Amino acid sequence: MSTAGQVIRCKAAVAWEAGKPLSVEEIEVAPPQKNEVRVKIHFTSLCHTDVYFWEAKGQNPLFPRILGHEAGGVVESVGEGVMDVEPGDHVLPIFTGECKECPHCLSEASNMCDLLRINTERGGMLHDGQTRFSKDGKPIYHFLGTSTFSEYTVVHVGQVAKINPEAPLDKVCVLSCGMSTGFGATVNVAKPKKGGSVAVFGLGAVGLAAAEGARVCEASRIIGIDLNPNRFEEAKKFGCTEFVNPKDHNKPVQEVISEMTGGGVDCSIECTGSTQAMVSAFECVHDGWGVAVLVGVPSRDDSFKTHPIHFLNERTLRGVGTR
Amino acid sequence: MSTAGQVIRCKAAVAWEAGKPLSVEEIEVAPPQKNEVRVKIHFTSLCHTDVYFWEAKGQNPLFPRILGHEAGGVVESVGEGVMDVEPGDHVLPIFTGECKECPHCLSEASNMCDLLRINTERGGMLHDGQTRFSKDGKPIYHFLGTSTFSEYTVVHVGQVAKINPEAPLDKVCVLSCGMSTGFGATVNVAKPKKGGSVAVFGLGAVGLAAAEGARVCEASRIIGIDLNPNRFEEAKKFGCTEFVNPKDHNKPVQEVISEMTGGGVDCSIECTGSTQAMVSAFECVHDGWGVAVLVGVPSRDDSFKTHPIHFLNERTLRGVGTR
Repeated sequence: MSTAGQVIRCKAAVAWEAGKPLSVEEIEVAPPQKNEVRVKIHFTSLCHTDVYFWEAKGQNPLFPRILGHEAGGVVESVGEGVMDVEPGDHVLPIFTGECKECPHCLSEASNMCDLLRINTERGGMLHDGQTRFSKDGKPIYHFLGTSTFSEYTVVHVGQVAKINPEAPLDKVCVLSCGMSTGFGATVNVAKPKKGGSVAVFGLGAVGLAAAEGARVCEASRIIGIDLNPNRFEEAKKFGCTEFVNPKDHNKPVQEVISEMTGGGVDCSIECTGSTQAMVSAFECVHDGWGVAVLVGVPSRDDSFKTHPIHFLNERTLRGVGTR
Repeated sequence: MSTAGQVIRCKAAVAWEAGKPLSVEEIEVAPPQKNEVRVKIHFTSLCHTDVYFWEAKGQNPLFPRILGHEAGGVVESVGEGVMDVEPGDHVLPIFTGECKECPHCLSEASNMCDLLRINTERGGMLHDGQTRFSKDGKPIYHFLGTSTFSEYTVVHVGQVAKINPEAPLDKVCVLSCGMSTGFGATVNVAKPKKGGSVAVFGLGAVGLAAAEGARVCEASRIIGIDLNPNRFEEAKKFGCTEFVNPKDHNKPVQEVISEMTGGGVDCSIECTGSTQAMVSAFECVHDGWGVAVLVGVPSRDDSFKTHPIHFLNERTLRGVGTR
């Protein structure tokens, strides 16, 4: 029996308060409205960005909320005007959506859609500002337009990507955030040349994907940097050729890397969100041509500080918005 | 009678102490050694960078010194091993030299030659560390490898560019610094697209050249920013279409520019050296694709500070070393 047009009762992991354990309970999920899609989530993974907004230490708290943005699912029903997907389609929710019409979507350089760009402070749907989640009539806010910690979620049609139904949803769910963020930061933004050198700061999922991007680009040296030495063995599988633990040295890690590489790496990818690591990632690239790419999400009050001479020595600093 | 191989006595403007008036007096200029060229300077102009190192407020003082780096002249004689130029050639001295062999010279991206890159702390010649200038036997230091405030100077052969002898030296002398710095920062680094928008911070010689670069790239909006409104009329000749004086507004100039342009300019060129202007230049570019290029030379103790979210919103910050 079709559930289209009906309120669905299902389980979700609800964050009622900042920093308090998520509570798995039954909620109501309203039908999708205009340009919206309701998705049955089969698998979801946990990203540090979820933790970050759950802690809400550096952000405006918005609770109760259903977090989660890295997932794989199947379209259950679609709202008015939805042409791109239909019930039964396998999809990944995408927190950096695309309207396909704004200057950003029409630009080759940007994925910061005017309509569907990341907005961590928005808790309702664009169509009417309301939530599609509730518990006993009390609204529960959305997160990043995805809210995948629920058996069913409602998203804007511009925030799903249709995928091959043969792709295993338990594996490809990580493509909706971590893997594509790290891989894309290297391949599309840093763009190391064949034979070049790359430093990856932070060897979590994003950093491993960044290293994999460098491997695919045929970089000859891929230096992983992490405070946790247990991550080094796994990182080799993703292409890392060398490792540096900042704790093992009594000088700044950028100096260590500069000495290892005769003046610095060709490019670096910062995947931790620590401003200290951002500065190291910037200062460890070679003058003349080095490119540093910032991926990690900083705290709201952090600031990036460096001497401008590092820019004047022909280094480039870029950020990516795909997380 | 040839002066080759002889010490030449000529006039120079010597800086004996930081901040004290230059003194025009007779000095001795030794013959060029291996890979060196002695040049009769016909015209020299004054760049703010000369003033900066004359004041020596934010730098290690190195005196007595002959400043000057923007000039035009004629080769008087050459030292051993010099093949690229010969006596009589018209040349511009170049403070960012090229050895043509190091990784930087072989790279398309860099002009920071390992051998001849800008070194403001070096006062002697590379060959033997000695100066070619003296006064009554007392050595006088070189500056940027050029020291053009002298009727004759000695430079490394990698620090002269041979030019067409029909080019008027009194005009083309400014090509050896200001014009090429600003023009190149726009055309080679910022690379605005036809129809794009460009903000130029600081409308001195470098900024005017940056605006000219934007005009040549067929930018549709070229916004000049300066605290001195008298510069605006001249800037129109170099392509500026609009002007903003930060003093006329009670909010940060980056907000003014963002409002004028519906979210920011496509690229900006910072030509003042003020860290405040650097931050404004970075924050006034459009998210998603904006590129800010830093050209101005900052004080030694300055630092560049911004919230990393400006990078994560897909802005790019680049510096150029051609000043």
